[in-house]
Amino acid sequence: MAKAPKTAIQPTREEDYPEWYQQVIKAADLAEISPVRGCMVIKPWGYAIWENMQAALDRMFKETGHENAYFPLFIPMSFLEKEAKHVEGFAKECAVVTHHRLEPSPDGGLRPAGPLDEPLIVRPTSETIIGAMYAKWVQSYRDLPIRINQWANVVRWELRTRMFLRTAEFLWQEGHTAHATPEEAWEETRLMLDVYSRFARDYLAIPVIQGEKTAGERFPGAVSTLCIEAMMQDRKALQAGTSHFLGQNFSRAQEIKFQNAEGQEDFAWTTSWGVSTRLVGAMIMSHADDDGLVVPPRLAPKHAVILPIYRSEDDRTPVLEYCRRLEREIAAQRHGEAPVRVFIDDRDLRGGEKNWQHVKKGVPLRIEVGPRDVASDHLFVARRDRPEKQSEPRSAFVATIGERLDEIQNGLLRRAAAMRDAHTRSIESVDAFREFFTPRNAERPEIHGGFALAHWVESPETDALLADLKVTVRCLPSNPELAGGPGACVFTGREATQRAVFAKAY
Amino acid sequence: MAKAPKTAIQPTREEDYPEWYQQVIKAADLAEISPVRGCMVIKPWGYAIWENMQAALDRMFKETGHENAYFPLFIPMSFLEKEAKHVEGFAKECAVVTHHRLEPSPDGGLRPAGPLDEPLIVRPTSETIIGAMYAKWVQSYRDLPIRINQWANVVRWELRTRMFLRTAEFLWQEGHTAHATPEEAWEETRLMLDVYSRFARDYLAIPVIQGEKTAGERFPGAVSTLCIEAMMQDRKALQAGTSHFLGQNFSRAQEIKFQNAEGQEDFAWTTSWGVSTRLVGAMIMSHADDDGLVVPPRLAPKHAVILPIYRSEDDRTPVLEYCRRLEREIAAQRHGEAPVRVFIDDRDLRGGEKNWQHVKKGVPLRIEVGPRDVASDHLFVARRDRPEKQSEPRSAFVATIGERLDEIQNGLLRRAAAMRDAHTRSIESVDAFREFFTPRNAERPEIHGGFALAHWVESPETDALLADLKVTVRCLPSNPELAGGPGACVFTGREATQRAVFAKAY
Repeated sequence: MAKAPKTAIQPTREEDYPEWYQQVIKAADLAEISPVRGCMVIKPWGYAIWENMQAALDRMFKETGHENAYFPLFIPMSFLEKEAKHVEGFAKECAVVTHHRLEPSPDGGLRPAGPLDEPLIVRPTSETIIGAMYAKWVQSYRDLPIRINQWANVVRWELRTRMFLRTAEFLWQEGHTAHATPEEAWEETRLMLDVYSRFARDYLAIPVIQGEKTAGERFPGAVSTLCIEAMMQDRKALQAGTSHFLGQNFSRAQEIKFQNAEGQEDFAWTTSWGVSTRLVGAMIMSHADDDGLVVPPRLAPKHAVILPIYRSEDDRTPVLEYCRRLEREIAAQRHGEAPVRVFIDDRDLRGGEKNWQHVKKGVPLRIEVGPRDVASDHLFVARRDRPEKQSEPRSAFVATIGERLDEIQNGLLRRAAAMRDAHTRSIESVDAFREFFTPRNAERPEIHGGFALAHWVESPETDALLADLKVTVRCLPSNPELAGGPGACVFTGREATQRAVFAKAY
Repeated sequence: MAKAPKTAIQPTREEDYPEWYQQVIKAADLAEISPVRGCMVIKPWGYAIWENMQAALDRMFKETGHENAYFPLFIPMSFLEKEAKHVEGFAKECAVVTHHRLEPSPDGGLRPAGPLDEPLIVRPTSETIIGAMYAKWVQSYRDLPIRINQWANVVRWELRTRMFLRTAEFLWQEGHTAHATPEEAWEETRLMLDVYSRFARDYLAIPVIQGEKTAGERFPGAVSTLCIEAMMQDRKALQAGTSHFLGQNFSRAQEIKFQNAEGQEDFAWTTSWGVSTRLVGAMIMSHADDDGLVVPPRLAPKHAVILPIYRSEDDRTPVLEYCRRLEREIAAQRHGEAPVRVFIDDRDLRGGEKNWQHVKKGVPLRIEVGPRDVASDHLFVARRDRPEKQSEPRSAFVATIGERLDEIQNGLLRRAAAMRDAHTRSIESVDAFREFFTPRNAERPEIHGGFALAHWVESPETDALLADLKVTVRCLPSNPELAGGPGACVFTGREATQRAVFAKAY
């Protein structure tokens, strides 16, 4: 047998970060590429994590007064055409339905038949089709606000795909709201950015920077796009969620008109906001290590696995009985809003192999129980976020398992925040900026840089420099500590109102 | 002002059943047609009912050992071609994606561009794409069984659509399992039919008949299709769920091969099973009445609405305070696995209008609270399933609200069962059969017939008679009381092994 590698994932993060990412997904059995170009299959462990994200977000949406609904998958081509910038943004990556049946072809196979009068676009996002319905539903200010969310699949025909981060089809939620005043619409836009930030912090254990996108990075058709940006372990930025203030751009295009309290006709002020299965990618790249996935407990499909260990049939019965009692005791404990999710893995597999499967899948706690543990009423407990294992009395462990999971959850957040802070820097000169974003080690080009905070005014020369370094302006941060006061643009010397966050990005 | 009609829904069920159905959907604000041909918009109240169905079914699937996953929306055309009967069944109603972008057209609009090498079909069902993945995942009998469910949208390009019952796009779940033996696959097929039957009985409050479809009504490519059939209030049958034993048909087409325990290669035995948003239609047509929707409590987004009634500002504060305390008390009670869902409707609307909105939406309990009720600590309670209202002491009402909801739930099931039984008949002659399915009242042609139980052997002459009467064989029932023993076919006199269920159907 070949010598076991030192880490479960090969290559390591240091060696080849992009390949490490793919190998973690494979080792944790999260997802797989499918025979359909650019589309992935989300496997049960990956989907269960997404379900936990959905449940938490859905609760937060409902607590903030939103309702769910469902709108059509297809958008007539003419609807997209109504908002010029919107169509410009999505026309190059649309799946287009042109026929509504198949017929036998002369070569013995099938061919499309029944051409449609008007092609249909598989929704890349639903502002236009939802707006068309809102136009029907809104007559008076009394019909406003409308605050609806949709859980759905969307399709953007990306040429270069990467699992969870960029796929042709992905799962997401899209909130669409309409309001009588710009103030209310702005309030909604900010509220949902806050919801996303809280979700990232409390569930994903990812600290994020809130900010506003620059004009060039805005959602096509939006007046303003707010975003949350997170730092991955390779120090690149990942946009983890966006909330758009659409002004009256879409309501004019779709005629979402209403009579205000003064009897005058006005267009509604709309917003939209969304997060997607990309968050699974953010979770992987924030917490996974060279042994595989690390799932924050609040998103873990299973919080703990019990591994019965016995060599003889005589030992089997008492060990299994002890494990079953332990499982019931643990399942009666709570973590956050849910009972602790625990299960016994009694498959007929070598102990080492079985243990490693749960390491690679990122189960927060692994509990080994052998005959000697039963005799001493102790458990041999391993935490996924730490290397050591230790023996603990059963009753004390069971009574504190909820706190233990909190501790793991909070520890992951602290670690991610420390990592981000260590690689966030104020930059005062072009040279320092260039140096920050230049790999220092030619053999490990992936991991370098981080978040640069610098005063900045848009200009073509700066754009060229940024393109050269493959760096983008991530956002104008809203936190005053990050934004700083006015100052001279690092690149042009012109007066800038605040600092921007720069990073290489996904 | 025009004289108020006697019923909230016009026309009534007796007057025009199909139009009544559409009007109930409108009055309860469940859904609406969209600008996209054949696709509907599911509005918040309708979607919340679907979410409750999903939650209950999902729990039942997980309790029976299934996991969720997600597979691509698109199916390459060549995948469909592999199973001859399958493609025959779906080729005529497929949305076909042929291009992957839009480009400016000479007339100033847009046109499809970027033709695909191979057209993609928007999934009408996912046996072929899921089977292709299973073929990769299965090598040995140790990899079996695979028991996965998917919640998804599917598209079947129907020409004649009706909201919830038949739409081009609909939401559903599709279970797909693979097993090492036909016995295990059969067990799964029957297990899921049982799950559907229990769900229909315990949540939808709809009694169903379990049975097997005839060859002509089978799922395209299946060896056998089991189904549950329910009777609607117009006495037509609605197929509410199906569970297919696919044998080795799909595993051969897709090469889902495995090595069995004896080291021989074999094809897996597969099943698939599904229910859809059609169940919302079943719920409407089973329980709604001439005043609108009636939602079984276990599926109701809200179990109870509190309606504060006051004429003066002086009364407002004490009434509202009383209502808020009542809301908290009720929310602390439980119904089934969930807390009682209650809310206060304090909108500035005429009391009568507000009350009728909740009647039309089918909220199980309406609780009116006025100043005199506050003084006497009584509530004025209306049940959606009964015409009368009555005054009740608050504490007794709150303490028993869970039982009250159970009573409503059970009452709806009993009523539906009584209705079905009253219109189910054993038929012994062709004349009696013809009479049973012929409208007796030319002005009310919609409501007649029911379920006919008759011995039957398939024959072209009988098919012609059935087509003439617009009657179909719904299933060969599995319940021995319905199936009866062997007997002579009512139509041909030939020996039949059991009776079949006949009905007009949706």
